[in-house]
Amino acid sequence: MRVKLDKSPIRMEFLRKKLKWIQQAMREQEIDIWITFTREGNEDPLAQDLRFSDLTWRSAAIIDQDGTKTAIVGSLEVETIKQSKFYDNVVGYTSEGAAPKLKQIIANRKPKGIAVNTSYDEGAADGLTSGMEMYLKRALKGYSRRFVSGEDLAIALRARLVPEEVELVKKAIFECEKIYDAIEDAIKPGKKDKYVHQFAHKLVAEKGLSTAWAYDRCPSVNVAGNPMGHIGYHNTTIRNGDFVKLDFGVNYEGYCSDIQRVYFVGPGNIPNSVKRMFETARAANDAALAALKPGTMGYKVDGAGRKVVVKRGYAEYKHALGHVLGRSTHEIGPLLGPRWPNRYGKQVEKPVQKDMVFTIEPSVTSKLGTCNLEQDVLVTASGYQQLSKPQEDIIRVG
Amino acid sequence: MRVKLDKSPIRMEFLRKKLKWIQQAMREQEIDIWITFTREGNEDPLAQDLRFSDLTWRSAAIIDQDGTKTAIVGSLEVETIKQSKFYDNVVGYTSEGAAPKLKQIIANRKPKGIAVNTSYDEGAADGLTSGMEMYLKRALKGYSRRFVSGEDLAIALRARLVPEEVELVKKAIFECEKIYDAIEDAIKPGKKDKYVHQFAHKLVAEKGLSTAWAYDRCPSVNVAGNPMGHIGYHNTTIRNGDFVKLDFGVNYEGYCSDIQRVYFVGPGNIPNSVKRMFETARAANDAALAALKPGTMGYKVDGAGRKVVVKRGYAEYKHALGHVLGRSTHEIGPLLGPRWPNRYGKQVEKPVQKDMVFTIEPSVTSKLGTCNLEQDVLVTASGYQQLSKPQEDIIRVG
Repeated sequence: MRVKLDKSPIRMEFLRKKLKWIQQAMREQEIDIWITFTREGNEDPLAQDLRFSDLTWRSAAIIDQDGTKTAIVGSLEVETIKQSKFYDNVVGYTSEGAAPKLKQIIANRKPKGIAVNTSYDEGAADGLTSGMEMYLKRALKGYSRRFVSGEDLAIALRARLVPEEVELVKKAIFECEKIYDAIEDAIKPGKKDKYVHQFAHKLVAEKGLSTAWAYDRCPSVNVAGNPMGHIGYHNTTIRNGDFVKLDFGVNYEGYCSDIQRVYFVGPGNIPNSVKRMFETARAANDAALAALKPGTMGYKVDGAGRKVVVKRGYAEYKHALGHVLGRSTHEIGPLLGPRWPNRYGKQVEKPVQKDMVFTIEPSVTSKLGTCNLEQDVLVTASGYQQLSKPQEDIIRVG
Repeated sequence: MRVKLDKSPIRMEFLRKKLKWIQQAMREQEIDIWITFTREGNEDPLAQDLRFSDLTWRSAAIIDQDGTKTAIVGSLEVETIKQSKFYDNVVGYTSEGAAPKLKQIIANRKPKGIAVNTSYDEGAADGLTSGMEMYLKRALKGYSRRFVSGEDLAIALRARLVPEEVELVKKAIFECEKIYDAIEDAIKPGKKDKYVHQFAHKLVAEKGLSTAWAYDRCPSVNVAGNPMGHIGYHNTTIRNGDFVKLDFGVNYEGYCSDIQRVYFVGPGNIPNSVKRMFETARAANDAALAALKPGTMGYKVDGAGRKVVVKRGYAEYKHALGHVLGRSTHEIGPLLGPRWPNRYGKQVEKPVQKDMVFTIEPSVTSKLGTCNLEQDVLVTASGYQQLSKPQEDIIRVG
């Protein structure tokens, strides 16, 4: 499941650690400065993390490769940014607009590479809007040929997690799994998928959590025979013999989990055809996990799982095998997806990195339904570590 | 005060009425279709209102001048959009990406004018990001020269209010004024501005409301002598003889109020210099109101108030006299601001329209502090109607 970014900012102590990763990425890519250029009405998705949120007029957060942070903001917001204590220099402007100060700071710095938030493939790294890009290019005439995408800096900021953040993801997984355990009582013959959906919402509210993606689509409850998709439910009644799949996650203090589980309803024999779907999904997950380690390209991990599914005679799943998970459910970063350039572009051509959490979720679909054993894992120096409990058997309910 | 857009969608019955205004604006500007092109990670600010929110892959909401609404979305979200019951046609795609379906629909329609969400001046009408613009121009090669800004369609959607919405703004004003009345007890010698700020937050929470702009800056409490700005407080102790200003608003079911009030602390005589600031601010508000009616350019309304302030020997205020208020505190639309092209661009060159709510907030600043009697008014067919109670005297507290 993929959603918009969660809106709570990264904690300041995490941000300071991540700044080192950002500087490292800047050195590797020969980027001298990174400009996040935002204004009210359509805030850059990275503004909140950069302590640069809720600003009115055109505002630039400039991070130098040497770690210096400069803010250019409307005069009435100079004090606002100073109070946030992240920026080393805060420069205000009034009726002359943002351009003169921008020009002056860039002319003094003479950067060769200037990263801006424009990205073909990654929404959250594409915060520079068309109108703001026009303004920035005019303001920095003579420098706009040096603009490059800040995509990998955004990934350093969002997708790599410091150990304390991994602990928060683990909490989100723990809470999600507890709710999953309780939900088993709700999946009964005669009840609707809508009932299961609302049952989960009740538990989320009781625990003071929020859902990991759009509330009305989380959990997504799928009773066999219904088409797969990003919806909450179809309003179908559950019957004995049904194969049921849930996709669900919670947000715990700004960090997300994203897990799927599959169920068989009633005391009857589980048909071999269902068992075979399950075994295939399990084998696809395991094949992908065997390929998951730092340096492996996203599409290779997808390929490892996809091959298993296709080899056993099922149709290719029409989505990616997995994605980065953390501050949002579908976080930016290397995508574990197929090389479908028109859909996924270069997202799948990036290497897996240490300190990233991924979902592993290849689908096995037949006319009986879709089986998906989505689990969450952390990439370590040499491979991966399980964070959620992998599903090893179909769960009987009802 | 100006903030990001509130995120609750327009009610469906309001949206259907507004669709007529949008079609009318399309006819006037010879726009055949309006494309809102969005994806996850950086959602177009209008997507939620257009029932097009939380979508994963590149997705296009296409509104035709004849009122037909077509959605192009990733295959897993076709059902999601169908369930929202706003779009007449929902078209899905998979590995081929969004481009072929986009191309096909446009080639069949052969539009002369194509509005897209790009705007130099208005953040909320500038939802097309730089990366998405690149994709759209490639996908619609041969048509991209027909792209025009959808700014005025966004204004029809957001800034003009149907009567039921005006009622909701009135409720937001009513709740705000009630909290303002209660706050008077908190502004006392020996208390800090922070105490007043937190006192207001407590009342907001008790009433189950939210603040009309960024929580940490709403209300903004300013004790004389501190610089004006978009901050919550300076951590200053209130003393007898202080001149105090509050800027505050609440969000009531997705609609906002935005009001300022000024106070004098203690039993002492109000200095003539303070009285004169107040009278000037009152006169500036009244002069602006006298100019406010449909068809008047925004800068003319600002000019009427600004002239009064300058004529009486005060410095020009470094902001606009007022802005549209409604679904967000600083809503897009004609700005009642000065012709400072580098700061406000063409926003001030748009005519005031019936059914818009405006704030009226010229500032009078001296070394004693800033006086601002911000009030909220509705533009009618021939002039305006007061919505908030105008402040006629300095309020004594302490």
